[in-house]
Amino acid sequence: MARDPKYDILFDKVKIGPKVTRNRFFQTAHCAGPGSERPGTQAHFRGMKAEGGWGVVFTEYCSIHPEADEYPYTSARLWDDGDVINLRYMCDIAHKHDSLVGVQLWYSGLHAPCLESREVGRAPSNLVSNMFPSRTVYGMEMDEFDIKAVINMYVLAAKRAEQAGFDLLEVSGGDSTVPIQFLEPRYNKRTDKYGGSLENRARFYIELMTALKRELGDRCAITTRFELDTLHGPEGIEAKEDGIRFVELMHNEGVCDLWSVKIGDYEEWGEDAGASRYRKSGWMTPFIKEAKGVVGDIPVVANGRFTSPDDMVNIIRSGVADIIGAARPSIADPFLPNKIAEGRPEDIRECIGCNMCVSKFNQCGQLQCTQNQTAMEEYRRGWHPEKFEKTKNPCSVLVVGAGPAGLECARVLGERGYTVHLREAEAEVGGHWKWVSKLPRLNEWSRVITYRQLQLAKMKNVEVHLGIGRMSADDVLGYGADKVVIATGSHWRADGLGPEGHMPIPGADASLPYVFTPEQIAAGKPIVGDRVLILDAEGHFLGITFTEMMADMGKKVTYVTNLSEVADYGQFTLEVQNNKRMLNEKGVATVRNHWIDRIEPGKVTLGYMYRYSADLTGPETGAVPRRLNPGTTEVAVDSVILLTSRQSDNALYRELKARRAEWQENDIEAIYQIGDCKAPMQALQAMFEGHRLGREFDSPHPEYPLPWIRERQLWGMQTVPALGDPRPIVEPSF
Amino acid sequence: MARDPKYDILFDKVKIGPKVTRNRFFQTAHCAGPGSERPGTQAHFRGMKAEGGWGVVFTEYCSIHPEADEYPYTSARLWDDGDVINLRYMCDIAHKHDSLVGVQLWYSGLHAPCLESREVGRAPSNLVSNMFPSRTVYGMEMDEFDIKAVINMYVLAAKRAEQAGFDLLEVSGGDSTVPIQFLEPRYNKRTDKYGGSLENRARFYIELMTALKRELGDRCAITTRFELDTLHGPEGIEAKEDGIRFVELMHNEGVCDLWSVKIGDYEEWGEDAGASRYRKSGWMTPFIKEAKGVVGDIPVVANGRFTSPDDMVNIIRSGVADIIGAARPSIADPFLPNKIAEGRPEDIRECIGCNMCVSKFNQCGQLQCTQNQTAMEEYRRGWHPEKFEKTKNPCSVLVVGAGPAGLECARVLGERGYTVHLREAEAEVGGHWKWVSKLPRLNEWSRVITYRQLQLAKMKNVEVHLGIGRMSADDVLGYGADKVVIATGSHWRADGLGPEGHMPIPGADASLPYVFTPEQIAAGKPIVGDRVLILDAEGHFLGITFTEMMADMGKKVTYVTNLSEVADYGQFTLEVQNNKRMLNEKGVATVRNHWIDRIEPGKVTLGYMYRYSADLTGPETGAVPRRLNPGTTEVAVDSVILLTSRQSDNALYRELKARRAEWQENDIEAIYQIGDCKAPMQALQAMFEGHRLGREFDSPHPEYPLPWIRERQLWGMQTVPALGDPRPIVEPSF
Repeated sequence: MARDPKYDILFDKVKIGPKVTRNRFFQTAHCAGPGSERPGTQAHFRGMKAEGGWGVVFTEYCSIHPEADEYPYTSARLWDDGDVINLRYMCDIAHKHDSLVGVQLWYSGLHAPCLESREVGRAPSNLVSNMFPSRTVYGMEMDEFDIKAVINMYVLAAKRAEQAGFDLLEVSGGDSTVPIQFLEPRYNKRTDKYGGSLENRARFYIELMTALKRELGDRCAITTRFELDTLHGPEGIEAKEDGIRFVELMHNEGVCDLWSVKIGDYEEWGEDAGASRYRKSGWMTPFIKEAKGVVGDIPVVANGRFTSPDDMVNIIRSGVADIIGAARPSIADPFLPNKIAEGRPEDIRECIGCNMCVSKFNQCGQLQCTQNQTAMEEYRRGWHPEKFEKTKNPCSVLVVGAGPAGLECARVLGERGYTVHLREAEAEVGGHWKWVSKLPRLNEWSRVITYRQLQLAKMKNVEVHLGIGRMSADDVLGYGADKVVIATGSHWRADGLGPEGHMPIPGADASLPYVFTPEQIAAGKPIVGDRVLILDAEGHFLGITFTEMMADMGKKVTYVTNLSEVADYGQFTLEVQNNKRMLNEKGVATVRNHWIDRIEPGKVTLGYMYRYSADLTGPETGAVPRRLNPGTTEVAVDSVILLTSRQSDNALYRELKARRAEWQENDIEAIYQIGDCKAPMQALQAMFEGHRLGREFDSPHPEYPLPWIRERQLWGMQTVPALGDPRPIVEPSF
Repeated sequence: MARDPKYDILFDKVKIGPKVTRNRFFQTAHCAGPGSERPGTQAHFRGMKAEGGWGVVFTEYCSIHPEADEYPYTSARLWDDGDVINLRYMCDIAHKHDSLVGVQLWYSGLHAPCLESREVGRAPSNLVSNMFPSRTVYGMEMDEFDIKAVINMYVLAAKRAEQAGFDLLEVSGGDSTVPIQFLEPRYNKRTDKYGGSLENRARFYIELMTALKRELGDRCAITTRFELDTLHGPEGIEAKEDGIRFVELMHNEGVCDLWSVKIGDYEEWGEDAGASRYRKSGWMTPFIKEAKGVVGDIPVVANGRFTSPDDMVNIIRSGVADIIGAARPSIADPFLPNKIAEGRPEDIRECIGCNMCVSKFNQCGQLQCTQNQTAMEEYRRGWHPEKFEKTKNPCSVLVVGAGPAGLECARVLGERGYTVHLREAEAEVGGHWKWVSKLPRLNEWSRVITYRQLQLAKMKNVEVHLGIGRMSADDVLGYGADKVVIATGSHWRADGLGPEGHMPIPGADASLPYVFTPEQIAAGKPIVGDRVLILDAEGHFLGITFTEMMADMGKKVTYVTNLSEVADYGQFTLEVQNNKRMLNEKGVATVRNHWIDRIEPGKVTLGYMYRYSADLTGPETGAVPRRLNPGTTEVAVDSVILLTSRQSDNALYRELKARRAEWQENDIEAIYQIGDCKAPMQALQAMFEGHRLGREFDSPHPEYPLPWIRERQLWGMQTVPALGDPRPIVEPSF
């Protein structure tokens, strides 16, 4: 189909210093995990976005020197020739698709744990890092000699970037890196010409940009990513005060070819990478709209988890920005620009803002995506998000259960040319995701279902059968399919069995009127009384969501968790701070490190998990070998909601497997299970299982994954640098 | 010197199945970080222990299959031929030194996050993992077909291990791996022949050992590491009950060539790797002494952080065990056995039990050691713990400050042949470590000082000058040294400035009688009144130590932290649970996520850190752009102890650097700074700085480290496996 002309503006070329980008789609730097250590993964992951139409693609944050080492978190690095070799491959692939490639130059200042390099970051002042609390990370206060050395580090890294083939050299002046550490009063306690007035605090940043412009400005675009408001009030940068005045100062120097603008800081990165539970598309616009007025023709990039081309056009037409920046939308759909160009925006796999991507990076792992199961698998498994190898052995497949795993499996099997019957007991597809995405703050999550529904509807070889009730083993055996995939999901336990002790909780029984499972709440089982206690052992999104629901219903709510953090997984999805703010605002009492000892009508007894002594009392029989100290509390409650653990709905698969002898007589070649019915898992993992099975459906024993490429040092292979190599000189001569 | 004959017994050979070890020193499997991904680091780290006299060296835990993938935590792996290549190098080096090499075969069961492999662990029952709470990790319940498949996985991995050259194949039956998951009632809810009675629960473990014995028992020793008591009472394994009865059961089958015995579980790994704050050398002996009586001639390994050869002899002579297992003592001193053999046990660099080693692994990083700065640097920097390259340019060096950094730097410079004057203002060496290691529970930490004192005393080219008072810049310039190293340390702030806001706390002033810094407490400044509040923003060992001190003095103590966890770093050092138990037992009130708003006589106002709203209120000027909600609390207190942040004592270095023009006229070639005076840091990092500077003292600009080898995929180099490789078959045929 032809492109809708109203979107033509998105495909204008834009000049960025000495470079020209082919359209207004700009993948801003975002963490993913490959860094300079997994060059194939890095190149094919970013290269796929170039193939999908992003005019500019970027690395993640890229450390310019071992003093800015955030290992075990993985940044890209431009420390040595090995990094040039590894990042060049990314540039080569992106250039093949006519995209520009950018690198975000990063020096952490006082926030450098340096667990690999064992070095120490230099900073405006000798302060403790609030980014890595308890790890004893401090910055060394720079003198003017150090300032020159650090600027030299940037220049050397930029030259390596040019060697690797990068077009855009972006200085991170956000995420609490050293340029903004100089700018923010809270981090800059200096009394010399680099501290005090805005002009003084801006000096480092401007000197740095000037040096890069001077050394490389004729061949590369020199750009910056700037935090216009750090959300700290006057101790930080305020958009309408120092924020906009700094943009003016730097703009007047003529050293910045493009401004990429956002808000927040490194410590609360979730204000930039806002999860959809708290931040709706475009939430940063009120802050960042100031910048464009100051910089004239210099292009401005605005992020805001934009997935709608209409919103994008609006941002440009209303003069907020010239270029649409995107990180998460480009992960969820690398082909977003091409789909608009091809006149099929309805095929866009829209980001749901669940922040699972960053949650994996924050565990020191590799990015994963709920919407795009091929993310980070482009190289190591050879997967393409939009291309599917047609099967050479088409056959009929019955998929039982249309939750996230079943939907995704049916989609991939359909794309590969199988005849698929996707059969769902209930009247709608989605499985548990149906009720999950109807909960407060989670509405965007329904895109997981709607995208797949639409794709399935487009395939003639896939039938979706709804409201058929639960299939029995006999139903499946007699259905007539060649192969069967079981995706029957899981449910929350009604007896309180969970991670603490793995025993049911005395008195926990969700058939009682005052005890609830999540499914029961979703189904409308009426809450009893005014005092509600929630036991959240999952620590992800459900417990906090039910807690807020109850508070909004006017209940007096007590949130109890066995973990040390409230909705613990939120520390990975960047929601933890706002979760705690919300609970405080809504008057919820929180209790950590407790479990329920027993439930009685009107009363719950909580037990502190550390009530036994630290000392061991020697081998004992029939008792924990520690002294027992006080540590129980009674709480008067009317209703108890239990999120203790889930149980697989695996009866169908287990029966079918036990009746394996009957498969052949029923012309069934194979039966597989995927997702929660195997073991309860995050939805993105369930969907990954469905996707992978579909991709590898015609391999031998596809219930086991095929080997993938493990990028790592193989003994005997070359290393760069080698021992004895000289060190690059950064220190200025006296 | 000759070996003391009383230690001869430690050097007896011991038969282990078909193998014989040359002595009784056995490096038990321990995490370190290299895994199968950094083969050079792995080989040289373990190989150094073989060189130093450990008759057996081991890998860390080694995953047998991608279903047991604990990435982003790094285990060794035996998944494919690439792993064989990478681990073979370790075996080759250890064999050169006549040591046996062992691998610990590990399948995680329900505790497998699988963030790299994206697979799902199989387990006795369909339960949630309590090891990775909030990450939604569950086990898939195995049927008998699965059990066979998992045993096949072990056998295939064991065959790869044999190919790589391993001598000992140790099945992990501790750390909550799948064999002990079957054994423990809390994890095993089965009703088939693998659940219920002890015989049934033991069946998997015994079948597994039997399969390994059958397939490989004539060429490799088949051994196990078993948790005799999991410290859970009857829901787990109790030493005198199922623990010892299981040892009997398996022993009777004749399938185990060696028993390595310990206590605890994976969730509280700190009961095995006990920090010295809670566990003194040999703490496991009361539990594990039962095993030897059951197994007759089969050797038993006992761990217990043994560093004294007398204790080791005692363990053997008293019949507790035949072999001394060690993890941390072998890290702190890889040459411990040789030093005993050479008659110089006083040279042993004894482990202090600080658990910094595991704390780095627990951050997903690579091991580091407070006592041994060369640990993990053997390959990548080419460092040997006992060998030092003599300098070709000997000169005189003044080291100012004999804290950890200065002591270590002077030691290395001395070993390298420099003429060193180590000058200390105070009457004793040690810097802040002097008072730290006098605090409750921290006495073993004094070994950091005593080891270095003794080594320095042995060197004729090193003079230590004590009690000389603070040196001025003039003193240094006029001292007559060719080169100078400044190591003047840091001190705690008296004004409450810390990570929250980086501003002083109103009313915080340690010159007041009721406000205290850590140094003041250590110096005996008298506590005022009975109610003490401690603000711990460091979150490591000091805050919890002062808290306990105050409680033991009979004070009513409130422990306040800005962090979400009590003494947060304890989650990395494995102390967090016992810290909380201790505080509970001693009646300390704990408050998390708070900071002090202001201090007044008799009163502290605490502010909740999340009292602002989650919603943003648009760009504002002069205020945080969020709604302000209630969130302050007044606490009546008499004394306040502030651990908010430290400040470098950098005045001397900064003055010397500013007076650089005077260096030449004073015949000074260079002045360097190391450790806390640069930026406050953990003691192990300060000592690393001193060590590294000493090692690289004669390189150009030694204030910057020389490049080290980065083990990683270099683009263009070979990978194993490759895409399209077949998958190893583990599933049994029907």
